[in-house]
Amino acid sequence: MTQLHPIAPAWQVERWFNTDKPLSLESLRGKVVVLEAFEMLCPGCVSHGLPQAQRVHATFPSDRVAVIGLHSVFEHHEAMPPVALKAFLHEYRIPFPVAVDQPSATGPIPETMRAYAMRGTPTLTLIDAEGHIRHQHFGQVSDLVLGAQIATLVNEAMTLDTAERTPVASGGRCDGDACEV
Amino acid sequence: MTQLHPIAPAWQVERWFNTDKPLSLESLRGKVVVLEAFEMLCPGCVSHGLPQAQRVHATFPSDRVAVIGLHSVFEHHEAMPPVALKAFLHEYRIPFPVAVDQPSATGPIPETMRAYAMRGTPTLTLIDAEGHIRHQHFGQVSDLVLGAQIATLVNEAMTLDTAERTPVASGGRCDGDACEV
Amino acid sequence: MTQLHPIAPAWQVERWFNTDKPLSLESLRGKVVVLEAFEMLCPGCVSHGLPQAQRVHATFPSDRVAVIGLHSVFEHHEAMPPVALKAFLHEYRIPFPVAVDQPSATGPIPETMRAYAMRGTPTLTLIDAEGHIRHQHFGQVSDLVLGAQIATLVNEAMTLDTAERTPVASGGRCDGDACEV
Amino acid sequence: MTQLHPIAPAWQVERWFNTDKPLSLESLRGKVVVLEAFEMLCPGCVSHGLPQAQRVHATFPSDRVAVIGLHSVFEHHEAMPPVALKAFLHEYRIPFPVAVDQPSATGPIPETMRAYAMRGTPTLTLIDAEGHIRHQHFGQVSDLVLGAQIATLVNEAMTLDTAERTPVASGGRCDGDACEV
Repeated sequence: MTQLHPIAPAWQVERWFNTDKPLSLESLRGKVVVLEAFEMLCPGCVSHGLPQAQRVHATFPSDRVAVIGLHSVFEHHEAMPPVALKAFLHEYRIPFPVAVDQPSATGPIPETMRAYAMRGTPTLTLIDAEGHIRHQHFGQVSDLVLGAQIATLVNEAMTLDTAERTPVASGGRCDGDACEV
Repeated sequence: MTQLHPIAPAWQVERWFNTDKPLSLESLRGKVVVLEAFEMLCPGCVSHGLPQAQRVHATFPSDRVAVIGLHSVFEHHEAMPPVALKAFLHEYRIPFPVAVDQPSATGPIPETMRAYAMRGTPTLTLIDAEGHIRHQHFGQVSDLVLGAQIATLVNEAMTLDTAERTPVASGGRCDGDACEV
Repeated sequence: MTQLHPIAPAWQVERWFNTDKPLSLESLRGKVVVLEAFEMLCPGCVSHGLPQAQRVHATFPSDRVAVIGLHSVFEHHEAMPPVALKAFLHEYRIPFPVAVDQPSATGPIPETMRAYAMRGTPTLTLIDAEGHIRHQHFGQVSDLVLGAQIATLVNEAMTLDTAERTPVASGGRCDGDACEV
Repeated sequence: MTQLHPIAPAWQVERWFNTDKPLSLESLRGKVVVLEAFEMLCPGCVSHGLPQAQRVHATFPSDRVAVIGLHSVFEHHEAMPPVALKAFLHEYRIPFPVAVDQPSATGPIPETMRAYAMRGTPTLTLIDAEGHIRHQHFGQVSDLVLGAQIATLVNEAMTLDTAERTPVASGGRCDGDACEV
């Protein structure tokens, strides 16, 4: 099924905050990834996108769901350098890793934002445990819908997880919690 | 797995609103049931519980998820008779079926509320497609958590659905609306 | 100036809650009166009107501003009898006196609601310390505007108060806090 | 009475936004001044202080009430230079004049913030039409209280206005916009 979904492009990152070492989709394989692209001076990001990402981070277990911020500056570049982002992340108590999207040498849109064809910020991209883009929300998405989409991907990952562990020729049935013989 | 979860007790209902015919757990088998127990004069029900139930009703497809209100009056009985509930449902634009919990002959707690061991209102009970109680939330539950729980049960139901369809010579397939031979 | 404003009609009241003795505009003369007309099953009253009246009650000193609820039932009469209102006031922790508007013998609109020519509920009527209607808001009014209107009437009342106390032939100047010679 | 209130210190400003010419308390004499001190990366300023200032600006007539922003950076100075503030004001649609508080040569607290003895941001200072500090709110203040305080100062200014107009042979009357001979 998942082969119908596009493979999530690699992140092109200038620098990271809130993490000791750089992260990549490969390093997060096995987890559902919630990628929250934002600008620190985007009102909708501050009022909706980032608080929602914080709720996701607080709600889902970190061994199943990784919340990653992506600071994708596509306007007012001089107003949002990494030093300003650092203060912003501190003041807004953002607890999850945040990547600074690599500025483009040829235009205002940074590299990862362009690779993901984002229309603006906030954009929340849901990437499944095998690294495919499954949903992309520009603007607002309700917590009910987002909670359902994340859970669906987590359940799918757990099934895959179990399936891979399941001996060939098993006659069993797997659901989110267990496999029965 | 699901045999570990208690079977949801049958609803004991004095009368129904917003439905042509009485509903039962049996008649909803195959759907995930979101049972929202409330009192029309309970502030938390009006400000949180019922708006959330309305969001669930507007978000999830009705062939997969059934939202049912349960008016469980356990105090101020004389203030909340069915005629008052009828006006309330009209004024608050409640779109889903609502059952009036059967008053008890022996005490203030109505029959269904007692059978489900609810601590008060609002109480949201999640019942899986096979009729087991899977989650019960007294007070508030976040939309993220609720969305995730509903989706997990819907996904499980769809997996079961498919599993049942798989065997050759199956004697029938049931979805939320009907059973096919 | 105030003679240009209509005199607030007397309240016609079936019964009172949250007060030991019946109140009247005469008994409140000298205070600014905030009259909050509502129905207990009116969603806008529950979500906006009554919480705002509670904020007014908590914000302004009771010797200057009297907040009075008026339960003006003009529809679904059988759903909102006084016994239901009593439970409602208890559950919603309404702290100020509430009058039950006198039902009309000839139509659905109760007597005080008709005398004040209200268009529906919630309707907030501001009555000055001399008993004139100064503002009437149907639906929502912002706290900024309402705070400003109440303060203006309070300041006016205090000026009148002082003026009446001020000796004739005073050369002084009065403001809200004091009079200077 | 007003002599009991401290005279508002002159504003020390590095540069202005949203105004063609520098403003001063003298140039605003006759109007009530709402001075909203903020930092662009202060969460409480973004979620509460500035939206409230915008509501005040939209609610009260500009010939009676002047809303002035004061960008008082006392931390993370490198993250909030004027070029970043300019983008912020654009993105958040701040419609009123904003002064950049003059950085101190000797410490992190800018000059106007120090002169007004502010404890942090947001701080809303109410200055009467004669240039006295009448109220100062650090953190949040309710719209009801703020509306009442502003109206009281406006009413006072209008009373003074009239009082000054009364004497024969007056040497002139000033309101917020102009002085008449």
